[in-house]
Amino acid sequence: MPRIRLTVAYVGTRYQGWQVQGQGLTIQGMLEDKLARICGELVRVHGSGRTDSGVHALAQVAHFDVPESKAHIPWQKALNAMLPDDIAILDAREAEPGFHARFSVRSKRYAYTLWTEPGYTLPQRAPFVWSVRGLDFEAMDRAAAMLAGTHDFAAFQNAGTEIKGTVRTLEPVLRAPGQHPAEWVFRFQADGFLKQMVRNLMGLLVEVGRGGLRVDEVQAILEGLDRCKAPATAPAQGLALEEVFYQEEALNAS
Amino acid sequence: MPRIRLTVAYVGTRYQGWQVQGQGLTIQGMLEDKLARICGELVRVHGSGRTDSGVHALAQVAHFDVPESKAHIPWQKALNAMLPDDIAILDAREAEPGFHARFSVRSKRYAYTLWTEPGYTLPQRAPFVWSVRGLDFEAMDRAAAMLAGTHDFAAFQNAGTEIKGTVRTLEPVLRAPGQHPAEWVFRFQADGFLKQMVRNLMGLLVEVGRGGLRVDEVQAILEGLDRCKAPATAPAQGLALEEVFYQEEALNAS
Repeated sequence: MPRIRLTVAYVGTRYQGWQVQGQGLTIQGMLEDKLARICGELVRVHGSGRTDSGVHALAQVAHFDVPESKAHIPWQKALNAMLPDDIAILDAREAEPGFHARFSVRSKRYAYTLWTEPGYTLPQRAPFVWSVRGLDFEAMDRAAAMLAGTHDFAAFQNAGTEIKGTVRTLEPVLRAPGQHPAEWVFRFQADGFLKQMVRNLMGLLVEVGRGGLRVDEVQAILEGLDRCKAPATAPAQGLALEEVFYQEEALNAS
Repeated sequence: MPRIRLTVAYVGTRYQGWQVQGQGLTIQGMLEDKLARICGELVRVHGSGRTDSGVHALAQVAHFDVPESKAHIPWQKALNAMLPDDIAILDAREAEPGFHARFSVRSKRYAYTLWTEPGYTLPQRAPFVWSVRGLDFEAMDRAAAMLAGTHDFAAFQNAGTEIKGTVRTLEPVLRAPGQHPAEWVFRFQADGFLKQMVRNLMGLLVEVGRGGLRVDEVQAILEGLDRCKAPATAPAQGLALEEVFYQEEALNAS
């Protein structure tokens, strides 16, 4: 059966996250609903991983398998014609042999956007930012530098994960200007992320920026492996899955 | 009575435009509702002008008068605490003597954003763009150049306006890249705009870009003064009021 690889963007605001759950609107569910209408049967969609309720994506990756007879449907056009405006297929193509949207992942990059203008949040940006004020960004940068590397990130994993190992390799966390002068974007790239790991890391960085946590306390929190000792989780709406990198691309590039 | 001058941004998607109407949610109505709660009485809000249902604003200007006893309320903070996320007060200050949000207007600038990637519209941008494809932008620029200047714009005025004169002076229409590589933004600045004038001008430019109208036909449409001879109105969601310029600022600048 041909495997189709999708690149999907979405505004997560009104969804209960990526993954199909007992009830509630999800991105995966929305895609499977449209595919069932096109194919006349259940077509399971496999994402690169879950995104939480309210989290956005600029380029989530997913795949699904279809019977040979359906291989030549123009999937991007067919799906975009049926999907609501807050989900769009950016690309659809037959996957390379052996490609699996989840198992072939090499690394992912998330972007977390902070809004720093104290008097207001621009309505056009409000669904995509966390509004904070009075942060010491220099202290946050120093704390971020302590997080990069291969660590056991158990202190930044929320409950409810099925994954056993909690060691991950986090690339240097980069801070860059956002699309509005009041914005700063923090980018987190790693070979994998634990449940709510980016939001927990961002929660820690903002707590440092607010002065509620000293930079020299970060190491102990990381090493303590105890979620209860770490600062609160940052809100979902500031987070977006920006890019998923695959093994075959690493091979092609080398 | 002190007069307070507001700068207001909003996402117009779920509103029936700026102006209070018999029924339906409006920006003016939302502001007056919050002011009534703060002041305990009706406070009329005067905008620089209406925006249509679904049109956005980055910096609409409005004013209201309050009793001396209320002059020192921190209006920005008080209103933003009560307003929904899709409306925000960017600035609130006591107005200069003689300032009137509508009567003191010298000119306004609107931005109309086109999305040109044919396969999809990015969900994050969908509420703010008109998705079009295959446009000849060079032809559109030539048509735009014919619209600038002092003209009777009756051909670009929709019915239902109370204004009598239809002569306006339109500055050169400028096309610039938008915030996403798939976007082009057209900026329209004039000493005043007729009802749906920007959307009607944009509708004409897109019709030229599609090849449905030749550049050398534009002059006749402008001179014909007949709305029925001009192309259809562009959709509301691509339009945003970007800036309102006032006489006092012109005086201060000179």
